[in-house]
Amino acid sequence: MNKQVLLAQRPVGLPTKETWSFTETALPTIQDQEFLVKQHYISLDPAMRGWLNDVRSYIPPVQIGEVMRAGSVGEIVDSKHPDFKVGDFVTGWGGVQQYAVGNTKGWFKVDPNLAPLPLYISTLGMPGMTAYFGILEVGKIKEGETVLVSGAAGAVGSVVGQIAKIKGCRVVGIAGGPEKCAYLTETLGFDAAIDYKNEDIRKGLKIACPEGIDVYFDNVGGDILDAALTRINRHARIAICGAISQYNNKTAIQGPSNYLSLLVNRASMTGFVVMDYAKDYRKAAMEMGQWIMQGKLKSKEDIYEGIENFHDTFLRLFSGEKMGKLVLKILPNE
Amino acid sequence: MNKQVLLAQRPVGLPTKETWSFTETALPTIQDQEFLVKQHYISLDPAMRGWLNDVRSYIPPVQIGEVMRAGSVGEIVDSKHPDFKVGDFVTGWGGVQQYAVGNTKGWFKVDPNLAPLPLYISTLGMPGMTAYFGILEVGKIKEGETVLVSGAAGAVGSVVGQIAKIKGCRVVGIAGGPEKCAYLTETLGFDAAIDYKNEDIRKGLKIACPEGIDVYFDNVGGDILDAALTRINRHARIAICGAISQYNNKTAIQGPSNYLSLLVNRASMTGFVVMDYAKDYRKAAMEMGQWIMQGKLKSKEDIYEGIENFHDTFLRLFSGEKMGKLVLKILPNE
Repeated sequence: MNKQVLLAQRPVGLPTKETWSFTETALPTIQDQEFLVKQHYISLDPAMRGWLNDVRSYIPPVQIGEVMRAGSVGEIVDSKHPDFKVGDFVTGWGGVQQYAVGNTKGWFKVDPNLAPLPLYISTLGMPGMTAYFGILEVGKIKEGETVLVSGAAGAVGSVVGQIAKIKGCRVVGIAGGPEKCAYLTETLGFDAAIDYKNEDIRKGLKIACPEGIDVYFDNVGGDILDAALTRINRHARIAICGAISQYNNKTAIQGPSNYLSLLVNRASMTGFVVMDYAKDYRKAAMEMGQWIMQGKLKSKEDIYEGIENFHDTFLRLFSGEKMGKLVLKILPNE
Repeated sequence: MNKQVLLAQRPVGLPTKETWSFTETALPTIQDQEFLVKQHYISLDPAMRGWLNDVRSYIPPVQIGEVMRAGSVGEIVDSKHPDFKVGDFVTGWGGVQQYAVGNTKGWFKVDPNLAPLPLYISTLGMPGMTAYFGILEVGKIKEGETVLVSGAAGAVGSVVGQIAKIKGCRVVGIAGGPEKCAYLTETLGFDAAIDYKNEDIRKGLKIACPEGIDVYFDNVGGDILDAALTRINRHARIAICGAISQYNNKTAIQGPSNYLSLLVNRASMTGFVVMDYAKDYRKAAMEMGQWIMQGKLKSKEDIYEGIENFHDTFLRLFSGEKMGKLVLKILPNE
């Protein structure tokens, strides 16, 4: 049998238990050119909140009654595709369910001997790719620049900051709580960290970025984006990756009231979607894999267990009660 | 004697008569390498409102008691500079006064036989340069794209739209009132115009931009910027030139609550300041002068008279009661 989490109703504000329905169905049958994946881990990402809204976006919303969309990694247990064999490990869009049908569209083989499986939905997966292309292609960081990143202890932010360090930047992270901030400076080598839950952000930025901000990688939006705008340098680049502070709003999103700082500072704010860089994922994963092996890039996964705990685990994205990449282990016990 | 308008106190919201003081002083004496300019016309621009605020910006604020800063054009009536002779006409930052002292910093000679003097503070001056570099260098328009411009009947917007037409774009302007809208489509050749005072902007955009917006040149901010964000295409560019709807706010500036459309559409919002392009002004003025002579580019100046009418004329920028570039003729009668 296949346990699944379906979208039951669209949430207004923070998702509740009623947002989802849990169901159990027969194992899916595979067609020619398909394979059956027993899923080990699924990825929990802030972007998933956006997929619950019935609005035009970069990807269609999840429909009511559909399996909740999620990135995943697992093992092939049945196959009608010549290149994907039973025993191969793959990552793709398996959704929040124990078994998924895969095909060549969006599924890639991974090697569990090169890296632990969760890494393939973390730093070597979508969050890592988002960080890599966002900070290099959109942020266009240069050696010696000051880089600020929000959501800095998260799956994307922690990689953004470390890549900026590798490239010779001064890196400042914003995160919630002393534990995360200590992790940034002591373990990941950030030059400074600002605890948004306990510090005044503007004062913190003044101290941590004495020469202003050249690149701001924004995962959170809201007041932190506004504070960052007050400290940007001439020709600064702001990469808009997300706005987690606004995703559960019941009212309009808070626009950055300091956006005219872009004018004063001849600066830019640019949005991006990681899927646009799909043709270069392999190259990026190889470079990041090397950095990991060289000890220059650390990846931290915070792994919870059990598909039945999906809802509670998902909410940790928004409460911040997690450390690093949030992963749910759903491998069924047999 | 030299009549001057000084900044008396910083306005909160819309400037009032108390914002200014009118004074009359002796003619200034010129030093070596300087010249005395009898000012014919001064330029009234929305940016002047920003210079009244005591905040860090791209240019220092006007200080209390200082002559109000303004672009101007006039005739040299006395000179201690070998290259600037009595009888030469010049444009520069003469301020709101009848006589100004000029030097080589920021003053340029102009030829009254090639174009009427007001044109040198209009399409061949700062507003024209702002339009030229903003739409070409920041907007990076390409043939066949849809270009939207707000404040489209104004000094900058009208030139933006016409340059975009010259470059083969579909051009839509937003302006206030049927007269201005008719001017855009009938006289300037815009493909469509939206009357923000009498139409629903979002509906108007849907009709006027059936294939979305590739480049938005924003002079106004506020609700119109938010509406434009709902219609941008992938890889759209938004050039932030100003936000006149917000300049007289007594509360915080309204940030664009739809800014996450930048993410969804991989789009960018970039601020710019025309002074950065000073080294290319001459080239731009020559190209625009040619377009004017070829009849491809029309320039309209709305000229009021008398330095004592500065305040009332200045307010027309914000009420919209003007047509084209707002100019004040201050040539003293003798």
